[in-house]
Amino acid sequence: MLNLRSSTADRWLAQAEANLDLVLIDHAHCEKKAAGTALNLMFSYVEDQPLCRAMTEIVNEELDHFHQVRDLLDRRGIRFRRVPPSTYGRRLNDLVRKFEPGRAVDRLLVAALIEARSCERFGLLRDRLQDRELADFYGSLFESEARHHSTYVQLAKHYGEEREVKQRLEELAAAEAEILATSTDPPRMHS
Amino acid sequence: MLNLRSSTADRWLAQAEANLDLVLIDHAHCEKKAAGTALNLMFSYVEDQPLCRAMTEIVNEELDHFHQVRDLLDRRGIRFRRVPPSTYGRRLNDLVRKFEPGRAVDRLLVAALIEARSCERFGLLRDRLQDRELADFYGSLFESEARHHSTYVQLAKHYGEEREVKQRLEELAAAEAEILATSTDPPRMHS
Repeated sequence: MLNLRSSTADRWLAQAEANLDLVLIDHAHCEKKAAGTALNLMFSYVEDQPLCRAMTEIVNEELDHFHQVRDLLDRRGIRFRRVPPSTYGRRLNDLVRKFEPGRAVDRLLVAALIEARSCERFGLLRDRLQDRELADFYGSLFESEARHHSTYVQLAKHYGEEREVKQRLEELAAAEAEILATSTDPPRMHS
Repeated sequence: MLNLRSSTADRWLAQAEANLDLVLIDHAHCEKKAAGTALNLMFSYVEDQPLCRAMTEIVNEELDHFHQVRDLLDRRGIRFRRVPPSTYGRRLNDLVRKFEPGRAVDRLLVAALIEARSCERFGLLRDRLQDRELADFYGSLFESEARHHSTYVQLAKHYGEEREVKQRLEELAAAEAEILATSTDPPRMHS
């Protein structure tokens, strides 16, 4: 369903669990960036009314999640601060084609894959974290990430034939798996 | 209340009424840009939790207004399209100081003045448009623009002393009035 080409290694879970504060702070920044991505897509394809409606919903949800993570940080006495992002987003965005309509397809599919990976990792955190409050929190976010993934894949079909979109999604999913497999980033949501 | 240094001339109302389709299309783009401005401010000052909460509310409201204008265009059979923006926003943003914390004060006050001018013009459209459906529509948006103005002015005080913010607001309001007085833009919400 999520179109991912790899499953997150246990190594990541161990690393995240040993650096939970940092992963939570990074998670807040990821939600903010996800809102920014959706709004940027709306700016780029503003004539596409279904896309604008879907992006509006995603912006609102991601900002709501941002505040949920911020509140959780506050409750735990963790100071929210800027942390260098993982290289994941930049490396994925480097794969986006430069010319339309391929550019639109790729931007939407990259967004879809980021949502898919978040979803997969939220599922892992939900099922395996010792910290049950946090496990429940990630369980509560799981469904919306899956839904955002589907939304982005569907919207990509506004800009490419179904067969072409499917093939490009497979290519980008393979690249996404490779980016994570070769990551040397410090502990992050997408390290 | 709105801290503006000029009242919109009747000339603008006549021009807007003679080019309503264009002004409505421009208005939709303005709502989208207002959401973008609020989200950019959240990215820049992400450690400021009250600012992030206020920006989230403004993003949600501006996107809702964007869709309301889009729906109105659809109902009237006006094709939504890209139109060159007025020079108003760029000329105002050129006045923003380059270094913090003055930069934050100016970005917030420029946003405050744009909301104030929208509010003033929405009031004029509400009171004077022959087209009563449209007059009512602008009446319904009036209050939120006034509220956004106040929010931005209050937030500017996170980054400067009250007296300094007040003085800078007066300077920028004078510049805003001058920008409109010397505008040679085609009919727009802020021409």
